[in-house]
Parts: sequence; structure tokens; C-alpha cells
Amino acid sequence: MAWKDPDIETFRALWKKRAATRGQVTIPEQRATFDADMGAIPLAPGCVVESLDLSGVPAEKITPTGAAPGKALLYLHGGGHVFGSLKSHRHLVSRFAVAAGVTAFHIDYRLAPEHPYPAALEDALKVYKQILATGIAPEDVIVGGESAGGNLATALLLKVREDGLPQPAGLYLLSPWLDMTTAGESYVKVGARDPIITREGIEMVSAAYLGGKPDNAFTSPVRADPTGLPPMLIQVGSEEVLLSDSLTFADHAAMAGVEVKLHVWPEMPHAWPLFHVFISAGLAAIEEAGQWMRQRLDTKLRAAA
Amino acid sequence: MAWKDPDIETFRALWKKRAATRGQVTIPEQRATFDADMGAIPLAPGCVVESLDLSGVPAEKITPTGAAPGKALLYLHGGGHVFGSLKSHRHLVSRFAVAAGVTAFHIDYRLAPEHPYPAALEDALKVYKQILATGIAPEDVIVGGESAGGNLATALLLKVREDGLPQPAGLYLLSPWLDMTTAGESYVKVGARDPIITREGIEMVSAAYLGGKPDNAFTSPVRADPTGLPPMLIQVGSEEVLLSDSLTFADHAAMAGVEVKLHVWPEMPHAWPLFHVFISAGLAAIEEAGQWMRQRLDTKLRAAA
Repeated sequence: MAWKDPDIETFRALWKKRAATRGQVTIPEQRATFDADMGAIPLAPGCVVESLDLSGVPAEKITPTGAAPGKALLYLHGGGHVFGSLKSHRHLVSRFAVAAGVTAFHIDYRLAPEHPYPAALEDALKVYKQILATGIAPEDVIVGGESAGGNLATALLLKVREDGLPQPAGLYLLSPWLDMTTAGESYVKVGARDPIITREGIEMVSAAYLGGKPDNAFTSPVRADPTGLPPMLIQVGSEEVLLSDSLTFADHAAMAGVEVKLHVWPEMPHAWPLFHVFISAGLAAIEEAGQWMRQRLDTKLRAAA
Repeated sequence: MAWKDPDIETFRALWKKRAATRGQVTIPEQRATFDADMGAIPLAPGCVVESLDLSGVPAEKITPTGAAPGKALLYLHGGGHVFGSLKSHRHLVSRFAVAAGVTAFHIDYRLAPEHPYPAALEDALKVYKQILATGIAPEDVIVGGESAGGNLATALLLKVREDGLPQPAGLYLLSPWLDMTTAGESYVKVGARDPIITREGIEMVSAAYLGGKPDNAFTSPVRADPTGLPPMLIQVGSEEVLLSDSLTFADHAAMAGVEVKLHVWPEMPHAWPLFHVFISAGLAAIEEAGQWMRQRLDTKLRAAA
């Protein structure tokens, strides 16, 4: 296949070489390599990072210059529920904070297999409650995440609904992983094109996250009724096995009367904004997400929409 | 159900009363009433309308003040392939022309049951070729339509692909009707909420359009392979039985690697921009579509996207 975006050819070649060089790795190795690789990418200019503890969950507050007071993004990083950290995703979260013009909360939720479901969801819920307890209004908060972080963000809002807590202003999902099974059509239709994720990889992290518990609506939000969730923006690449996760969830949300904006980016692999150093369309996607967050968080714009 | 948008309550009450008053109508009555009702809505200010003949198809050229030279929207009106006209849709097409800042071509393709498939598609293809023949580059054209016009717009691009002609810059679909059968899940899930369209209504216009011919990929684009179609924007209401048409087609296009932007508007009924006099969110949807068309037609923006 000939790619229209020249970055894609380069990225795919790089990733192929990397996979061939590394071979099989243990979970500690995977975590360390991912943290080193991603942690080396510089933050967006003008961001101040503060470490903090949110109800016992290690976290960071990332504040860009000129951030709108009292508005926040709670961002849940990806990594299959098994890897990813404050270090690996700091650069990405700082980009979202700048694009949205708000303070971002970036959290170190517990990872599997040491801490399977529902540990991460418990951490996310504690943090959401703590953010509201500091006086930030729910309509001034966006909850978002990519990949397994999109899974956790969606599960969090389902839990928020179950607990009768107020929903945030919006749910932002980037290449979300929303189905623990690998039943999605895209595993077959897109499988051969996906340069990053394989069915086997998903089966491994899924088993680690479930930890022997049965799959359910909080682990696989494609099995949830999305009624009452806030407006959502879903960005996904056409070249990823998780494409069906986005399409199926968008379908269910639409049928439930939820506002859905879905943007399928052609040629893009899984969670491409994380790789914006190699794929400049990642920055365009971050900008699009930031514009959407600004609109959702602007009281005047929201009333007019 | 309590509607958040106060226009919706008013519109639904109005439509219910209208349906109750009118009862069963013949096709000539339906055409006349629709033309009278919709034709009474004023054009967007500053538009010049010229009648023209495009390869034997009666048409209009609608040019707003300050339209970008050499850029065009080919708009195909809706009406179940059975009604709708230059008169009924002139106001809507003028709104799109202003929002996009381009000249719009609005055509009077042949209607069923007098002229079943493929009469309308033949007309649309002749017009598309004629527009290119006048020297407008395909990358400077957007093809769009609502409801049955979305059906025709999509069929046109499938035919353009089959004939080896160049694709336009984008495909705009508003509440498109993309499946002649009524197999979509939304007939069941949304049926009770749809204030405008019923399964029986779709069965009638579908039979008229097919005229005894078998359903195929050009009459039901959900049965087509969308590979090679241009980037598309699909806007659809959450309260319409045709919701599945949009979701299914978006799914197929995404899997085929086509750029898809899908916006599901909560609370909105079928083709609500047509009713912008009653539902002001119709104007917001037209503005969103216009912005997307501007981006697709701007060479610089397109290269950067």
C-alpha cells in the first residue's frame, strides 16, 4: 500500500525494525522501555508540572500558561492496563492541556497483572471525586484517555452514573480499547494492516486485566448501555484492530441518544498522537481534540450548541 | 421524554398536528404541499439564483456574495426519490452555499414512480460530468445531499468510481437514506421516537424507486464497498429510523480506510436543517457542514490536514 502521508511509511518501517530487534520482552522490560522511549519526548512548552497525591493515587497536575481557571482535564493514560506511567505520557498530556487551555490531571492508577480489575477503576473514581471535592464543577471537567485509558475513562463514567454522581462535560476517547474479547470485525478486516497491535497482544493484556474475573460492562464498555453519558469525541485510526471498538461504541451511544462525534483518521495507526514526533498528524489530532474540549468547557458555546 | 432543546418540543407538536390534519395524501398532493411549505422559506440573504440546463437536466446555480471562484457544491435534494424539487430545497441549498462560501448547483433530477432507478442516477452523473466539463476541477467540488439526496450523492460517487472518473474533494451526507430495506436496527430502537419517518413510508418510496428492479449497491450503498470514496462528513439525528443507515455506512467506510467524520446530533429528527425555521440547531448543523466544506476545498488546509 502506498501511503499519502509520508510520515506513515517512516513510522511503519521504524516500528517493524524495533519489534524485530526487541523480540519477546517481560512486563518489567516493556514498562522500562516504554517509559524510557516516551519519557524522552519533551513536554509542550510553557507547562508547569506539580506532583500530587489525589486520595492516595500518585498524580501530576500539568498547568499550561494561560490555563482557564477552574477548568480541568482528567486524563487516563493507556498501555493495555499493564504498562504506561506518569513518565511515559507526560508529554502527551501536556499537549492536550495546551490544546484545551486547561489544567490536566494525569494519574498513576494501579496496573495489572499485580492489580487487576477493578483496582484501576477504583483509583480513577477516587480521583474524580477528589477533583470535584476541590471545588471544580463537573461541567468544567473533561474525562479522557487513549487505548486502555479510554477503556478506563468510559468505565469511570459508567461507574459515576451507577453511583449517582454528576457526569463531566465530555468524554474524549482516542483509539479506545472497549472490548476485552477480540470479537470486533476489525481484527479480521484491519488485522493485516495494523503495525502496532495484534490479537495475541490483546489476549495477553485482557487476561492480565480481568485476572480471572468475568468480562462485564465496566471492563468492556461495548457491553454497557451508554444512556446518560455526556457528549463524546472519538478519534481512531483506520489502521488499527481496535477500530471496531470505536465504531460499535459510537453506534450504541448514538442509539441511546448520546451526542457522538467520531473521526476516523485514514492511514493512522493506534494512538498516533502519542507518536507525534514521528507522525505530525498526531499534533493535528491533538489540536482537534483540544478545540472540542474548549467548546465543551465554554459555557457560552455549550449553551449555543 | 423531556427535550433539552425547546425547539424540539414545538416542532414535534407541530408535526403531529400536521400529520393528523392531512391524513393520507396522493403523490401529486404530497409534492405540491411540500413545495408550498418549504418553498415559502426565504433564501439566505445575498444569493443570486440562475436557472440553467445541465446536459438536459433542469438546474439552478445559487451564488452567494463573495463565493470562492472555481469552487462548487453539487447538492442533491431529498424527498424519498418521489418528491422534493428546486423550489422546496432552494432555501436549504442557499444556506449551504453561504456556509461553504461557494457556488451551489441544485438539480431537478427525475423522480419515481414515473422515473424509477436508474433515472435519477443517470441525471446526477450527467450533471457531475457537465460541471467538470465547464472547467471546475474535481478537487474543487463537494457532492452532497440529504435523505434520498444522500443516497443519490453516494450512488453517484460509486458510479464515478466505476466509470474511472475523478472523485470530488468530499462527500457530505445529511441524514442519508442508504438502505432500501428496513433492516437497520434503528427501525426497532428509534422507531417509536422518530416524529417524521415510518417503516411503512420507507417501504412505499423504496418500492417506487426500485420500480421492480432488484436492490443493489447503487440503490443501497450500505451494500457497496466504499474503497476509494473521498473524505466524508455524515450528520444524522439520534431520533430517526435512518440512524443505522449512517452508522453502518460509516463503519464500512472506516474499515475501507476512508476518512469519516460522523456527528450524531442528539434530539434531532430527520434532516433537521431543512426545518431550521422551527429548529435553530438546523442552522448550527449547516454552519458545521459549511466549515467542513471550506476545509475540504481549501488547498492549503487540505494539504495540512
